[in-house]
Amino acid sequence: MTDYFASVLSHARFKEDKSAKVDLFKGNHLFAGLNCFEPGQTQPVHTHAAADKFYFLVTGKARMTVGSETREASAGDVVWAPAGVPHGVELALERTVTLVAIGPGL
Amino acid sequence: MTDYFASVLSHARFKEDKSAKVDLFKGNHLFAGLNCFEPGQTQPVHTHAAADKFYFLVTGKARMTVGSETREASAGDVVWAPAGVPHGVELALERTVTLVAIGPGL
Repeated sequence: MTDYFASVLSHARFKEDKSAKVDLFKGNHLFAGLNCFEPGQTQPVHTHAAADKFYFLVTGKARMTVGSETREASAGDVVWAPAGVPHGVELALERTVTLVAIGPGL
Repeated sequence: MTDYFASVLSHARFKEDKSAKVDLFKGNHLFAGLNCFEPGQTQPVHTHAAADKFYFLVTGKARMTVGSETREASAGDVVWAPAGVPHGVELALERTVTLVAIGPGL
């Protein structure tokens, strides 16, 4: 990784027991990282009170929840989770890599 | 597009005369949208004084600049442009769709 350029998939990491997180970039206002899931892994529904977030599915497929919506998202989809709205990954249906943006950064 | 889920490529738009911008989601803290380029199109180098930004190349290939680095980025790459650092797309080498995150949102 240079200071500014990174290949997402070359940074993807997976854990056997739970989803894996990878930090890519952190600024004063924005965070960029990865959430990586093996099939069957989850991310419990949670809420960021004062940060907006989105996931972009780089590869894979997962059943995701935001607010009262639960849908299957797959590679090429963006999932938006604004501040104060509960969100999570109910179930990764395939090996899934999501690029995550959170602002302000964590 | 639902309130929270969107397919990036179904929202991509292109213009003949210059790169095209598409807004996907706007929150109080974060903006998500698309910058779409036909081959040969550019985005002049510019700076956001108080916002961090990244591009994720969903499809295509482009020569991009951040600070003093100019590199070819292609589908699957993230390009990080922190607040105060000049950045732009020197040349789209293919039809290119970038997902853009800016925080705080514009």
